[in-house]
Amino acid sequence: MRSKWWGWGREGESYHLPDPERFWSYVRARLGKTEPTERLESPSEIKLSPSGLSDGVVSELSAAVGAQSVSTDAATRAVFSLGKGYKDLIRIRRGEVPNPTDVVVTPGTEEHVLEVLKLARRHGLAVIPFGGGTSVVGGVEPAAGRTSITLDLADLSRPLAIDQHSATATVQAGIMGPDLERFLNPSGFTLGHFPQSFVYSTVGGWIATRSAGQNSTHYGTIAEHVQSLHLAHPDGLLTTPSVPAAAAGPDLVQVITGSEGTLGVITQATLRLSRLPEYDDFRGYLLPSFAAGVEAAREIMQAGLSPSVLRVSDETETESALAMRAPPTGFAGVLEGAGRWYLGRRGLSLESGSVMILGFEGTEADVKHERAAAKKILSRHGAFSIGKGAGRAWQRGRYEAPLLRDTLLDHGLIVETLETAVPWDRYLALHAAVREAIYEALGERSVVMAHLSHSYRDGGSIYYTFLAPQEKGAELEQWERVKTAATEAIVRNGGALSHHHGIGADHRRWMPAYLGDQGARWLSAIKTAIDPDDILNPGKLVPPSTEARRSPAAADDG
Amino acid sequence: MRSKWWGWGREGESYHLPDPERFWSYVRARLGKTEPTERLESPSEIKLSPSGLSDGVVSELSAAVGAQSVSTDAATRAVFSLGKGYKDLIRIRRGEVPNPTDVVVTPGTEEHVLEVLKLARRHGLAVIPFGGGTSVVGGVEPAAGRTSITLDLADLSRPLAIDQHSATATVQAGIMGPDLERFLNPSGFTLGHFPQSFVYSTVGGWIATRSAGQNSTHYGTIAEHVQSLHLAHPDGLLTTPSVPAAAAGPDLVQVITGSEGTLGVITQATLRLSRLPEYDDFRGYLLPSFAAGVEAAREIMQAGLSPSVLRVSDETETESALAMRAPPTGFAGVLEGAGRWYLGRRGLSLESGSVMILGFEGTEADVKHERAAAKKILSRHGAFSIGKGAGRAWQRGRYEAPLLRDTLLDHGLIVETLETAVPWDRYLALHAAVREAIYEALGERSVVMAHLSHSYRDGGSIYYTFLAPQEKGAELEQWERVKTAATEAIVRNGGALSHHHGIGADHRRWMPAYLGDQGARWLSAIKTAIDPDDILNPGKLVPPSTEARRSPAAADDG
Repeated sequence: MRSKWWGWGREGESYHLPDPERFWSYVRARLGKTEPTERLESPSEIKLSPSGLSDGVVSELSAAVGAQSVSTDAATRAVFSLGKGYKDLIRIRRGEVPNPTDVVVTPGTEEHVLEVLKLARRHGLAVIPFGGGTSVVGGVEPAAGRTSITLDLADLSRPLAIDQHSATATVQAGIMGPDLERFLNPSGFTLGHFPQSFVYSTVGGWIATRSAGQNSTHYGTIAEHVQSLHLAHPDGLLTTPSVPAAAAGPDLVQVITGSEGTLGVITQATLRLSRLPEYDDFRGYLLPSFAAGVEAAREIMQAGLSPSVLRVSDETETESALAMRAPPTGFAGVLEGAGRWYLGRRGLSLESGSVMILGFEGTEADVKHERAAAKKILSRHGAFSIGKGAGRAWQRGRYEAPLLRDTLLDHGLIVETLETAVPWDRYLALHAAVREAIYEALGERSVVMAHLSHSYRDGGSIYYTFLAPQEKGAELEQWERVKTAATEAIVRNGGALSHHHGIGADHRRWMPAYLGDQGARWLSAIKTAIDPDDILNPGKLVPPSTEARRSPAAADDG
Repeated sequence: MRSKWWGWGREGESYHLPDPERFWSYVRARLGKTEPTERLESPSEIKLSPSGLSDGVVSELSAAVGAQSVSTDAATRAVFSLGKGYKDLIRIRRGEVPNPTDVVVTPGTEEHVLEVLKLARRHGLAVIPFGGGTSVVGGVEPAAGRTSITLDLADLSRPLAIDQHSATATVQAGIMGPDLERFLNPSGFTLGHFPQSFVYSTVGGWIATRSAGQNSTHYGTIAEHVQSLHLAHPDGLLTTPSVPAAAAGPDLVQVITGSEGTLGVITQATLRLSRLPEYDDFRGYLLPSFAAGVEAAREIMQAGLSPSVLRVSDETETESALAMRAPPTGFAGVLEGAGRWYLGRRGLSLESGSVMILGFEGTEADVKHERAAAKKILSRHGAFSIGKGAGRAWQRGRYEAPLLRDTLLDHGLIVETLETAVPWDRYLALHAAVREAIYEALGERSVVMAHLSHSYRDGGSIYYTFLAPQEKGAELEQWERVKTAATEAIVRNGGALSHHHGIGADHRRWMPAYLGDQGARWLSAIKTAIDPDDILNPGKLVPPSTEARRSPAAADDG
């Protein structure tokens, strides 16, 4: 199946609404009537500026990697020039691709990647690594004013080896989630890395964006999974040592993890694996409030438990999920096994409470031990079990929310997500502040909901989803206004600029406010040291104006 | 009590040998007769070249930080110019301090650290951060040919705050281990970081050297504990965001962790805490062989268990420990509760087996759950419990081995430790290869023993201790020969150049072989970008010859 150029997933895939009537009546009640959004029929209708590459350079590229791996075809260039953020979908549906890449190259070997990088340096061309292309922060869009090569890693996607003894696997960076797990599972292993984009994203993309998955609270984020990697750079191939731990200077793996293509192209990785769990237990709980749910989550983590999923929806998300029975965040059917009458007697309400999904994985003994410890904490916070059905419903729908976004876009709604992480002591204050900022930017006809999806001993993430009618003719301005208001509230309240979406082009202007002037200058200095010609994914991650700050006067005001 | 300038710990502290007769007869039997080593009476006898700082610069320093915080006194300069490695002790005992620092500055505020750094940059002076001074890899010795300021962090050692809710503490970097735990324990928290140097080393030193502690298999290494930090740099103060997790570019905390003073001076840190364990269970086991013990350790980790201590001694260390009843690695009394006769019936022998110390901490339920899971694995590998006495003995002696080193040095022995980490599939091969290399370099009269001290899912550490008679008049050459042989065997067999000692001056010449040419160049490029004047702990960590490699020819051979 071909990729859906105008949305998420593959052509023909769409979100299954279990109860469309109920869903749309909830949407109309909250957001009013909206007008459908038109879109082009085919990517061939997209009007693209011609490739800025000379025939000579295209020939050089073809000579280096083979002509079949080089495409300057307009439709191909168009779909490789945008990611899958709301802003991207709005534009591609209209056929607006303002900064098209000039060529898409699909190298089949690490050596070919190195050849392309050397050629790019010789000609001053930008190089944009492209894995699954699911960036929602502008990570794969070419920088305006640059001639660009998009380096598609689809042909560097082979699994290479499993080390059964050390529990590691070595794979090429372009391998996608399902192919990776299909390689690992027969040997009894899993990576345990399941971001919402799992089906369409790659190991290299996960590493480049410092990805966290839906089960990372148990298995660890991608930053913990990488034992070693290969990074192609115009100077040659960097290979980091394959050791379990070291005190041998700054950890280069951690310099590269999250570098978003700005320091080189990840071509291969050796990943730490876990045993496939023999037993799991995912359940839903209803808590009296989001505050109670967050407090329970904090205590679960600080007790040293290791839940695979620990997800707490705020009151709005809980209410929406129940009303819609097919919520953007994927859990449905939480009513199963729980009568409203019974809840009412306990002072709980589905409409003003907070749903938690709590899952454990491991041996049966592990799961039962952890479940028992968690149960004590949950009871103290007034949690009521709504059963395994809610847990199963969440598991079933875990990758599907972006398909619902396509449906909502079709109906003329803005629907976007953004996320952060913050220490527990500032958690509820930030949750409220960002929510308010989004409501204020969207106006009255809107829904802003959030959940905790990743918990740590010292804090947790907050993932917002918001919906409103599109401002017709000003869709991008509307998005920009809300994004700015939310991000400024995040940074002002001490949240992470991103917990797992990354920085890309969209967040980088806040990097100096987030990292501080010195931190932003460090990032810029490292980028310049490694990529002095600024050919590696320019315009991403590294804040644009930090160079200018390096005056002696500024240097003395620390 | 004053520090012991010629050895470990404080004046008056020495190792208590439970059975000196038995100990020395074992040493004599294995190593023959040795001649005692002389040492100076007082550091005032050390002949030091005069401070290379002009009176003008000393006055500037005094004006910046206060005259009482500036010392050019020879004895002070001498003891701040060496760490606590074997090479350091050999030299300081003789009064040889070839590269003395030129001034010791003890700033009382972060602002004063920044002032000193700016002054150092103006005058081209090297700055060496000095926490507890326990480096065993030459991390605090001034670089030859440089005029140096040693920045003693003893007056930046205050605990600042505990965040009970987020389970974090903020402290100044100069705080030592016991003071930190005394600050945390009353609130029910621990950092859980207990390196052998715990009593005399600092939070800043732990971070700068990427330290691991004896309980890091459970609590995590220092790299996992740092939520955020302050780094003083001549350009100003870098403060990293205080968030539990982020996908916002390369993690600057991980760039600084392990930077060994080469990028700036760590002045403050916010650390992730754990709850003080309410229950623990430390036991000894005897296994038929080191190979069986290592295999059991691997399975324990890959089953997802989280032991606080998992330590496996090889056959030589097991035999030595029992023979000496007061071994350098600190466990004694493993015979308690286990009769030789009984062991023999099971095919086990104290002289040809492998002792494991396995400890769990947490709630009673946690510990019992993990112990039960571990027990199944241990049984499969023929482990025999030698009881809690062995566990307690290890806990009692855990910080004392370096005091025994002083005694052995007095008696004319070379005694040194070195360590690495390696994936499980290469573990036993590396163990044997490095052991052989050390034996070959030391000759017949020697003991080379090792243990696994830190386990991960994908591999484990190996910690070697070796003893031999000193080659009189050529003590440093002897050390250099063994160190070179061992380190080359480590790198050749794919081990980490260091697991937790760090790189310092001693290991840096192997960094290109360990990191690869590209990795070494990256480290060098980052160093140059952040510290273009090379004033921050020069001569440490960053390999000396990587600059020269940056020719265009080399750049194209990737």
